[in-house]
Amino acid sequence: MEFEVKKTSGKARVGVLKLPHGVVRTPVFMPVGTNANVKLLTPRDLEEAGAEIVLSNTFHLMLKPGVEIIRLHGGLHKFMGWKKPILTDSGGFQVFSLPKLKIDDEGVTFKSPIDGSKVFLSPEISMEVQIALGSDICMAFDHCPPPDADYEVVKEATERTYRWALRSKEAFKTENQVLFGIVQGGVYPDLRKKSALQITSIGFDGYAIGGLSIGEERSLTLEMTEITVEYLPEDRPRYFMGGGSPELILELVDRGVDMFDSVFPTRIARHGTALTWKGRLNLKASYNKRSLDPVDEQCGCYTCKNFTRSYIHHLIDRGEVLGQILLSLHNVSFMISFMDEVRRSIEEGTFREFKGKMIDVYSSGGVSV
Amino acid sequence: MEFEVKKTSGKARVGVLKLPHGVVRTPVFMPVGTNANVKLLTPRDLEEAGAEIVLSNTFHLMLKPGVEIIRLHGGLHKFMGWKKPILTDSGGFQVFSLPKLKIDDEGVTFKSPIDGSKVFLSPEISMEVQIALGSDICMAFDHCPPPDADYEVVKEATERTYRWALRSKEAFKTENQVLFGIVQGGVYPDLRKKSALQITSIGFDGYAIGGLSIGEERSLTLEMTEITVEYLPEDRPRYFMGGGSPELILELVDRGVDMFDSVFPTRIARHGTALTWKGRLNLKASYNKRSLDPVDEQCGCYTCKNFTRSYIHHLIDRGEVLGQILLSLHNVSFMISFMDEVRRSIEEGTFREFKGKMIDVYSSGGVSV
Repeated sequence: MEFEVKKTSGKARVGVLKLPHGVVRTPVFMPVGTNANVKLLTPRDLEEAGAEIVLSNTFHLMLKPGVEIIRLHGGLHKFMGWKKPILTDSGGFQVFSLPKLKIDDEGVTFKSPIDGSKVFLSPEISMEVQIALGSDICMAFDHCPPPDADYEVVKEATERTYRWALRSKEAFKTENQVLFGIVQGGVYPDLRKKSALQITSIGFDGYAIGGLSIGEERSLTLEMTEITVEYLPEDRPRYFMGGGSPELILELVDRGVDMFDSVFPTRIARHGTALTWKGRLNLKASYNKRSLDPVDEQCGCYTCKNFTRSYIHHLIDRGEVLGQILLSLHNVSFMISFMDEVRRSIEEGTFREFKGKMIDVYSSGGVSV
Repeated sequence: MEFEVKKTSGKARVGVLKLPHGVVRTPVFMPVGTNANVKLLTPRDLEEAGAEIVLSNTFHLMLKPGVEIIRLHGGLHKFMGWKKPILTDSGGFQVFSLPKLKIDDEGVTFKSPIDGSKVFLSPEISMEVQIALGSDICMAFDHCPPPDADYEVVKEATERTYRWALRSKEAFKTENQVLFGIVQGGVYPDLRKKSALQITSIGFDGYAIGGLSIGEERSLTLEMTEITVEYLPEDRPRYFMGGGSPELILELVDRGVDMFDSVFPTRIARHGTALTWKGRLNLKASYNKRSLDPVDEQCGCYTCKNFTRSYIHHLIDRGEVLGQILLSLHNVSFMISFMDEVRRSIEEGTFREFKGKMIDVYSSGGVSV
């Protein structure tokens, strides 16, 4: 892996990340393909949208179809027909969202939400699975405490995250894949700092900011990100896990973050909402019933080049999934174009203006005409 | 419209149908796009699959989004983003499937299944709607009796179909669109003959065989088709309404039919079944869990070129709609390729061998390995 920061504007930075399956320009948005597919989209849809990397989930894939099936295909890239880079999370976030689990230093035991069977996940197993998946970027196995956890709980989880990061790195015996460490620490500044120092002391190819955007106040999200970034090395990519609305991305880019993922653009597409350069657009709304405009006049995606808002309104109204498909395609295309503009504004030194303009647009409550 | 029969093999025939939006090679399979979309597929998916014409439904479109919205777009082609020919049915079949209707010679009154409002449909209104839709091929408004209707009921419906065909033609004042008449007559040979003679006496651009494949015995379907075709002119296209399984198409092509439509290939795709050159393939079945084979080794569609049966099995197992999308794409591609082979075998004089082989394959109960 190579990572080079090409240009900065304040703390915001443009970089180039070279991975085994391709080059990723940062700041980057990664569409989420939980079950080895980005919902409703084919790999060629994603390529056409300009996606350079997608995220998939160790937790889901180890349960179904299971590592053996993916190994049989020669890895996740071949299984899902995606030739560009893949980042996989470690499963930590998901298992800690489950009820009825047993956590000790060895690892986590949980009931499979699919068939109720007992499953054990540890740093070593997570690495083994991610190595089998062949992800370009693998994530260390971490302990993500809930947003309302008190100090002692978060402290313990943060210490465990450190011990598990050491074991993750130790178990990560592979080539052509890289490993990112994850900083935890909840919403406690001293724990964030300590975690950042601990994780960076181990030495990873990149660093993730974990355990945020999970229900805490937005101001805390930003404050904790600032504290964390302060202790991360300049020359490694920084990945904020699970945040992907345009507004949040702008705030985080402004604080030096390089990588983002979220189900948000595809999820709201399935609920009839488009992201546009003028804000959110609710295609279900009756004001779109007769609109001959495209979803976004500035967008060059297949949806915007070929269909009216009226048509998509009709599809959604009739429960035709094609409406969701066309909006998913648009929203992913939009997010990629949005990141293109983020990078361009950093390169041109106009990031703050761009940020201000887009936050205005997105805080105004959506397109109404 | 021009229609030319290029080659025959027994009663089976290869033809070329020139329509305002393009050329259609017959025998042809028309994917069904009821609500102005073929479920889960974009127009470019359909073009890539090789579809030369799609069917859409007057009944559904007049209710939602309504004629006015489609008129606003300049017609159905622009509304749904499909540039090639479109055939629309007249609404007759659908309204006669509804409960609580009032039928008299003027037309049919029914309750909208969408909002319960009272809607009236007549030959004149059906023509007005189809003219507004701008379909290449419009269908006369007919009275389709249920499959178990007794002789007197069918006789009356058949007579009414004749009177409505006269009125349909009278009301069809348009250019760049053509009108097909529909032969009814249920499963009664004398009524079929009479209807065919009546409808052809009016003179239409093409002729449809209606009221079949709606629950009657397969042998009756074929017998009624034979009787009807006997009284249809050689130089006009013949369209069997609503039949589209490979087996049925082969039997009907063998009896001189040129055009077919059915929701069957896309519907079974959504239920996890693929059509292949070796028969039906159930992707849900556990024997596909580890299969690295494509859905069909002989197929060149996007699905077969890029994904394994195992991957599609996984998507369906996880409830990921992408599995249904990929199978819909494959099944439509398969039907188009299947019709290519039907035409090729007629041209080469080997249609009966091809038919025999494929009926064997499709009667053997599907691919099991």
